Formats: sequence, structure tokens, C-alpha cells
Amino acid sequence: MSAPHRRACVLIIGNEILSGRTRDANLPYLGRRLAELGILIAEARVLQDEVRAIVEALNDCRRRHDYVFTTGGIGPTHDDITSAAVARAFNVDLMRDAEAVRRLSEYYGDEELNAARLKMADVPRGAALIDNPISAAPGFQMENVFVLAGIPAVMQIMFESIVPRLVRGTPIISRTVTTDLREGRIAERLKALQERYPEVSIGSYPFFGGGRRGVNLVMRGTDQETLSRLTDELESLIRDLGGKIGAD
Amino acid sequence: MSAPHRRACVLIIGNEILSGRTRDANLPYLGRRLAELGILIAEARVLQDEVRAIVEALNDCRRRHDYVFTTGGIGPTHDDITSAAVARAFNVDLMRDAEAVRRLSEYYGDEELNAARLKMADVPRGAALIDNPISAAPGFQMENVFVLAGIPAVMQIMFESIVPRLVRGTPIISRTVTTDLREGRIAERLKALQERYPEVSIGSYPFFGGGRRGVNLVMRGTDQETLSRLTDELESLIRDLGGKIGAD
Repeated sequence: MSAPHRRACVLIIGNEILSGRTRDANLPYLGRRLAELGILIAEARVLQDEVRAIVEALNDCRRRHDYVFTTGGIGPTHDDITSAAVARAFNVDLMRDAEAVRRLSEYYGDEELNAARLKMADVPRGAALIDNPISAAPGFQMENVFVLAGIPAVMQIMFESIVPRLVRGTPIISRTVTTDLREGRIAERLKALQERYPEVSIGSYPFFGGGRRGVNLVMRGTDQETLSRLTDELESLIRDLGGKIGAD
Repeated sequence: MSAPHRRACVLIIGNEILSGRTRDANLPYLGRRLAELGILIAEARVLQDEVRAIVEALNDCRRRHDYVFTTGGIGPTHDDITSAAVARAFNVDLMRDAEAVRRLSEYYGDEELNAARLKMADVPRGAALIDNPISAAPGFQMENVFVLAGIPAVMQIMFESIVPRLVRGTPIISRTVTTDLREGRIAERLKALQERYPEVSIGSYPFFGGGRRGVNLVMRGTDQETLSRLTDELESLIRDLGGKIGAD
């Protein structure tokens, strides 16, 4: 898509995603929400809980993209090392944030606020906190990097609170046409259509299983009218080839 | 983990994953299967359907890791550009593979084997085919890079067929202990435990929702006996702190 999007990178931090133990739910959420804000996720990486790997990816991505969003690794346990890694990437100290301590202390009470939990008040020098109305421990922003929780409910509420800080682009909208035609039948004419609509990104996603077989044709762009016209053309192309609109 | 694992990178290719439209199912599968083979996924990246982005990530990752597995982008449509990108990354031509043509022709019949479908017989010069008993169009291997389909059923059958080509490490096994204790309660003693078992990776994953709240403590390592001993220690630590084994 050639429209004036802003571009983002998502860094998903956590061994549990790489091991296959946990299926990430944050990228789909961020993909949908950022598209609405006109911000395109150009890349995502899943990283181990390893300071060096995080520092390297972060420094690569924050220079290449308008925004970087990280998820995971900001809890109280030994494997939560995202804040330390971000501080190192920006070459600043990790410092205990007084406001974060206040929030944690209000949430836990002084009795329960032990050393491990206090670690969640440590942020890189110069960071701006991101609110966490669910469990108090804040995320934070360093320049164009937003550090969010890994638990989906907390990640989502943090993300929504930073939306006003983001510079938006033109919202990315999408339309899907499903057909029972096989991809190979439609490919050549689809390619010609893509060439005539360079401002729209047309994706072709075959599926089968559970007695259904077909292909989802997904158009993503920024202009409602163009997408409607393209949808019409696509549907008549499908009928032309003897296909049905909708899956088997 | 300090054991003699081999390390892999997974490149998930496809705009539909980044946009949030499709939730990737291949990384969890590969994570589990590779662990059984003693190959640790050290990193995964989700990439757009863009030749330059794929070439760059591929050249970065194939030098850093023992293996690279790619998923997606090897179908017949205009947005299927993985083969072209791999050829460019290896600086070789894309060539039509006679054996691949034979398989496609057998599957589709000469009538249905159009130009778009024939594109699926184009592989980088020097590639070794990977069988696709479901829908004929092969994946391929170039040195330490394995190019697999995006559709999970096809990806899985392709992966299983290349298992004999992989040099295995010591299988990575895992144990999980679930408790109703909060992470912050257990964090300090968990850290001490991690320090005493540097050969095991201990992860702490809190969860809540649906009336359940607790934390999964996941131990990953290569020695069954060590994991059993650690599990015992972890369970007695939890009881010590007044916690239950199992979730609320």
C-alpha cells in the first residue's frame, strides 16, 4: 500500500510463545487496532527472555519504524527483563519511579509490596509511565517505544490509554470476498486486478478443512470507494470464471 | 538453557498475520515439534509479503541460526513471493524444476495446469524439493533454510517429511506447576531456585479471567531427573508460602 501510513514494529517478548506453550493473542489485537489508527504493522518479532536479543532487536526496529510496541516481560519475576533491556538499548540507567512506587503501594498495601514487586517500579531514566488500571504495575514509553504488559487484558487497556499519544495515519480498511474457486484458477486475473489497483493490497488466502474449501480474497486500502469498486470487479471476475461468492 | 541445543529461526511470511486477520498456528506447532528434536526456536519474525523485507530477514537469520524455517507465500497468486525472495537472498536464479512440474501436472492434469500454477514449480537453483502429499506444490530446502507452506495442514506434513534431514539436539522437555499464589509472592524464592538450576529455564506466566487466577511455572530443560527434582522443590516452596498446587 502506497498510502501515507505510519509503520510500526511489534516485539513479542517471551519464551512461552517461542516454545509453543502459549499462543500469542496480542499481535492480532494490535494489528486490528493499529490499522484503524492508520498505523501499519510492518514487522513483528518474537524474542526470547534474553537481554542481548531484546536490545539488538529494539535498536534495529526503533530506528526503522515510526513506532515499536513491546509486549511481555515487565512482571516481578526473574524472567521479566524487558525494562532492563530497554534501558540498555537507550543507554540510560534503570531507576525507581516514585509515582510507580506510589501506585504499587496503593494497590498492594505496604505489607505486600515486597522487593520483587517493587522491581515493577523500575523504568529507564526519562520514561513516561503507561497506566495499568487492572493490576497497577505500569508500562512505559521511551521515545517511540511503548512497553506494554504481556497478559492480553492488561496489554489492551494499556494500549487504549496510549492511543492519544500516537500520530495517526489514514485508517486502513479491508474487505473480504470468499469464493469456492481454487486459487490457481483465479490467480492470473487477480494479478491483473492488483496491477490496476496498486494503492490496494490484495491478498489471497486459501483454506480447507471441516468440509469447507475455498479462498479468502482480502483487499486492504484507505479509500472506501476504491475498495467498493474493486470488490464489485472481483465479484464479477469470480462469476465470470464460474465461481460462487461465499465458501462451499 | 546451556545444553547443546541447535537453534532455529522461524520466518512467518504474510500480511494476513500482521494485520490481525489470521492468527498464526504454525509457530506453536514448530515450537513443540522442534523442542522434541532438541532444536530451540531462538527467534521468530512475522514479515510482510515484500521481497526486500524477506531477503533482509533471511540473510540475517540464516547466518545466525542453525536452521531457518519459513512459512507462507509459496502459492500461485501474485502475493506469493517467498521463492523469488529466497533466490534473491542466495543470489541464484529462480528456475523451473522438472520434477515439481511433473508432480503438479499429475495432480492438476495438463488441462488445469496453467501459468499461475506452474509458478509453484519455480525454485531457487540448487534447491532440494520438500514433498507435499496434500496439494502437490512442493516446498524446498536451500542449505539451512526450509521453505514450507502457510496452510497449517500442509506445513505440518512438509515439516514431518524433513525431520530426517535435521541434525537433532538433546530433546527439550518441560514440566508445569500451577499455583494460586500471586507471582509477586513467589518471585524472590523462584529467582533463588533459578540460580541453583542454571541448566533449566524457569518461566513464570500469570493468568486470570474466567474466574481463575494464578500462575503457571514452566520448567524447560533436557534432563528428566533434574526436572523432577526441581518440580518437587518448587511444589514444597509453594506449600511453604501457603499456596495451593493447581489453580483456584
